[in-house]
Amino acid sequence: MTQNRTHTCGELRLSDAGKAVKICGWLENLREVGSELAFAVVRDFYGTTQVVAETADMVALLKSINKESTISVEGTVRERDSKNPKLPTGDIEVVPSKIEVLGRCQHNELPFPINRSREADEATRLKYRYLDLRNPEVKNNIILRCSVVAALRQAMTEHGFLEITTPILTASSPEGARDYLVPARNHPGKFYALPQAPQQFKQLLMTSGFDRYFQIAPCFRDEDARADRSPGEFYQLDMEMAFASQDDVFAVLEDVLPPIFAKYGKYDRASGAPFMRIPYTEAMEKYGSDKPDLRIDLTVQDVTSVLGACGFGPFEGNVVKAVVVSDFHETRKFIDKTLADVEVVSGGKPYWFRLDENGEIVGGIAKFVNPIKEQVISALNLKPNDFVALSAGKLGAAQKTAGVLVKTLGAAVPGHMDKEQYAFCWIVDFPMYEIGEESGELEFCHNPFSMPSGGLEVLLKAERGEIDPLSITADQYDLVCNGVELSSGAVRNHDPEIMIKAFEMVRLGEEDVKAKFPAMYNAFTYGAPPHAGIAPGVDRMVMLLAGEDSIREIIPFPMNKNAQDMMMSAPSEVTQKQLDELHIAIVKPED
Amino acid sequence: MTQNRTHTCGELRLSDAGKAVKICGWLENLREVGSELAFAVVRDFYGTTQVVAETADMVALLKSINKESTISVEGTVRERDSKNPKLPTGDIEVVPSKIEVLGRCQHNELPFPINRSREADEATRLKYRYLDLRNPEVKNNIILRCSVVAALRQAMTEHGFLEITTPILTASSPEGARDYLVPARNHPGKFYALPQAPQQFKQLLMTSGFDRYFQIAPCFRDEDARADRSPGEFYQLDMEMAFASQDDVFAVLEDVLPPIFAKYGKYDRASGAPFMRIPYTEAMEKYGSDKPDLRIDLTVQDVTSVLGACGFGPFEGNVVKAVVVSDFHETRKFIDKTLADVEVVSGGKPYWFRLDENGEIVGGIAKFVNPIKEQVISALNLKPNDFVALSAGKLGAAQKTAGVLVKTLGAAVPGHMDKEQYAFCWIVDFPMYEIGEESGELEFCHNPFSMPSGGLEVLLKAERGEIDPLSITADQYDLVCNGVELSSGAVRNHDPEIMIKAFEMVRLGEEDVKAKFPAMYNAFTYGAPPHAGIAPGVDRMVMLLAGEDSIREIIPFPMNKNAQDMMMSAPSEVTQKQLDELHIAIVKPED
Repeated sequence: MTQNRTHTCGELRLSDAGKAVKICGWLENLREVGSELAFAVVRDFYGTTQVVAETADMVALLKSINKESTISVEGTVRERDSKNPKLPTGDIEVVPSKIEVLGRCQHNELPFPINRSREADEATRLKYRYLDLRNPEVKNNIILRCSVVAALRQAMTEHGFLEITTPILTASSPEGARDYLVPARNHPGKFYALPQAPQQFKQLLMTSGFDRYFQIAPCFRDEDARADRSPGEFYQLDMEMAFASQDDVFAVLEDVLPPIFAKYGKYDRASGAPFMRIPYTEAMEKYGSDKPDLRIDLTVQDVTSVLGACGFGPFEGNVVKAVVVSDFHETRKFIDKTLADVEVVSGGKPYWFRLDENGEIVGGIAKFVNPIKEQVISALNLKPNDFVALSAGKLGAAQKTAGVLVKTLGAAVPGHMDKEQYAFCWIVDFPMYEIGEESGELEFCHNPFSMPSGGLEVLLKAERGEIDPLSITADQYDLVCNGVELSSGAVRNHDPEIMIKAFEMVRLGEEDVKAKFPAMYNAFTYGAPPHAGIAPGVDRMVMLLAGEDSIREIIPFPMNKNAQDMMMSAPSEVTQKQLDELHIAIVKPED
Repeated sequence: MTQNRTHTCGELRLSDAGKAVKICGWLENLREVGSELAFAVVRDFYGTTQVVAETADMVALLKSINKESTISVEGTVRERDSKNPKLPTGDIEVVPSKIEVLGRCQHNELPFPINRSREADEATRLKYRYLDLRNPEVKNNIILRCSVVAALRQAMTEHGFLEITTPILTASSPEGARDYLVPARNHPGKFYALPQAPQQFKQLLMTSGFDRYFQIAPCFRDEDARADRSPGEFYQLDMEMAFASQDDVFAVLEDVLPPIFAKYGKYDRASGAPFMRIPYTEAMEKYGSDKPDLRIDLTVQDVTSVLGACGFGPFEGNVVKAVVVSDFHETRKFIDKTLADVEVVSGGKPYWFRLDENGEIVGGIAKFVNPIKEQVISALNLKPNDFVALSAGKLGAAQKTAGVLVKTLGAAVPGHMDKEQYAFCWIVDFPMYEIGEESGELEFCHNPFSMPSGGLEVLLKAERGEIDPLSITADQYDLVCNGVELSSGAVRNHDPEIMIKAFEMVRLGEEDVKAKFPAMYNAFTYGAPPHAGIAPGVDRMVMLLAGEDSIREIIPFPMNKNAQDMMMSAPSEVTQKQLDELHIAIVKPED
């Protein structure tokens, strides 16, 4: 008998009828039918079992126990008269000979009913997270998370990756987000920082000769909370491969992720390998986004040459984009509401017209379109009942609004979204440089430490004026699933000479490279392998799989939006002795 | 071709002769035989491969590359004339057609020769850890660690345990060691603390209804370094089971650990289940230690009644313990040196006599023993060539010295230690209370939150004076392997009523219980399951398996003894802006 029971509360079946058993769990409910008949539900991690008290003593005993107390029940399994086919244990009940209280719940009233905890306000849920987690719906999200993480580990290990844990107490880095700092007791005035990501360590591991590294890595950024970002800590599936190209990284994740998404997700379909690869510029043109949701069949078309001069004021001198929605039979009210939503999200005003069932152009800006009707119909290949949403502005703004039109109309208009799947794609060929909006000069576009495609040679060409530096792309990539960016990754720039050259393009140099990441720069002067990697967010993946909108639903003990753990009372005040030992003092802000 | 190569440097065999291949790796060595003949060794994560340059151009090219640069070699596999049977790739060599430098090592001189890095001083090794890790011996310890952790995870998962990660930013706790603190930006004057262990969270998980929890858990204690403790962070295999007894916990680890120790350890034997269980009091009497090394066949015997009054001054009025070593043929010099070592370690002076080959008592304190020779021989069942080491003092001191005698003589005298194995045992039945040395009153002996054996009833008996409170034991246990304590664990006290009673025994009460762990106490009032767990130290286990004496040998990026990471320059100074945002100021100590 392990863990004080013969069976769990999810285990007994009709074939067990007649057996003497012992179960342990929480007294979830008691339904008293009479002074000599009551039905109790006992719940543990694995399920619930009905216990039926048939004597006055047993009924009285059960009545004396507060719900949510832990009890043990010894008794005999019996076939139920009225079975419950929804419950795995619904064919049987246990007739108790002995009931013992193992852990008394001292409260008659709970902060919320366990099985409806998700309806309670979040502050109460988080304060009593240990009660919230007793709700099977809440618990199942945590189990899902654990299963997904275990499956990721298993798959990465099977692919020859070694999980190496990197330090959590490390150095503050000038890059990226705000660091969490930890005063160093033995080094007055100095601080450790918690890692924003193990980026430097994984690149150092490559330089150390490790070949395939991964880690379910805790990361720390002192940033304010968002729906998809918990304050404080989060986890990523951090990976890196030596001597590797973009294709090597893609091949691993295309092999690892789809089976896990299909098995654990709310949808059981996921893209197979290879995932669609979309150059950044094409993604912006075709989907109006570098996070396209490929479950939607709508795309963006450029209609500047057709509609730019149609006389409609907002189109004048602007880029104009169109999103055609076929088989459109929605109401005017739907159109107004949907386009209003798009404006709120995108910040750009959308326009529209439609072809009625006879192919006539009606509604919205129809009067500007009708004079060039044939041209427009031909350019967009329009058919009756097509709805045409439009955006206009400078290129980026018009693309952005069009992208929101795609996602909003795709989700709202029936027939344009094959929703129940996980659709992956890679966004590739990000530009290395851009002209800074403020400076008007060449600047790094994304990550200065990604390898420019073509390496040193392409930089030298740009330096000699043979190519436009804006045409240089980086070996950098994003993994996108269902319109959600799961991660950025890159082939790293492992060559100090190319690093310096890449920095010189934006009027910086060796000292700037060194200042950013001194340890990595030094290491790279001792011979580094080319290497590439990525780090998909575990929390985001689990959110997608669970179909939850709040990240707090998939974290065992989340902080609230204000970065507080109200259950543990963190953060909290500390003693003067603690401060003294750490050589710090508190400077309270003036109100 | 993955990762830019057809084969790794550990992969090619005689059967590959004739193939066109590409390998990538570090240029480990170049042996120039002539201007048209040179042998290069290329090393990657998986092994080394010999490359033989047979043209003046190739020799010149290789000579131009600094060692430890990364290169790719395309060429043809050829059977070697003189094979190297010690090397998996020793049957072949690669004749290159093309060699490319992938990552240039800019330095002619390295801080230390890679394959002899363990001989370098530790400060240099840690500063250049990325070079140190290229040494296969150093790397293999890290691989061992990763393999052991992966195997532990796998085994725990197979036993139905769910790995749940608990928060790293949490609340400062009044118990235990010193906390690392993290200033909370949005809460001036308040601090998070890094967890010393996930103890509270795992007990809250039990209260939340999880049944079998585990975690390879990062733990943080701001304590100074020791040989077996890294400053800063360390990892434990944290586990907890609901409704469980001591036996349930034992059964899991007895199943999980031995196969992993036998597979990954330097010895291939490990105790089978069940491990020997030794009550604390018996361990102190029989082994003079609560960390016995069961590979040694020596034990301690009490000889107070036989030798206490023999007239030897130091025995007078003291407890006297004896350790008999049979088949003893060591020199006088050995005896003097060994006993001197014992005195240094134990702080107590050991004494001795021996029986020569004729059974005569000689040496050491023989003249005090000879008058009662027959009694002594009979009491200790002595035979010729037995060596008898003795300790004397108050009970604890005499036990301690005897314990050191057991371990020292067992290891030093041939025939008394079956060394090449992992010998596990459980130490059980720790006393719950003791008389405080300073207070002279009843105090908790170890962990106040362990369940007293017998629960509330036994505490009430003690309160009523029916039993001596010093006779109460706790359901607490230590796991010991080869004389090293791997972990303490316990059946937890999950009942607020028993907690308060246990505290009242030492003149404390409910307020004190609440003050220690408010969240846990509150949670327990809502119905908690009985639960038990343990948390063996991962670092210590890996040290035992690797046979290393320094914990820094089994951590990928360890800090030095001074809690600094000299490679990353942590801890380091931060900007005033960072301090301002965190509402703290530095208070430099006066010299």
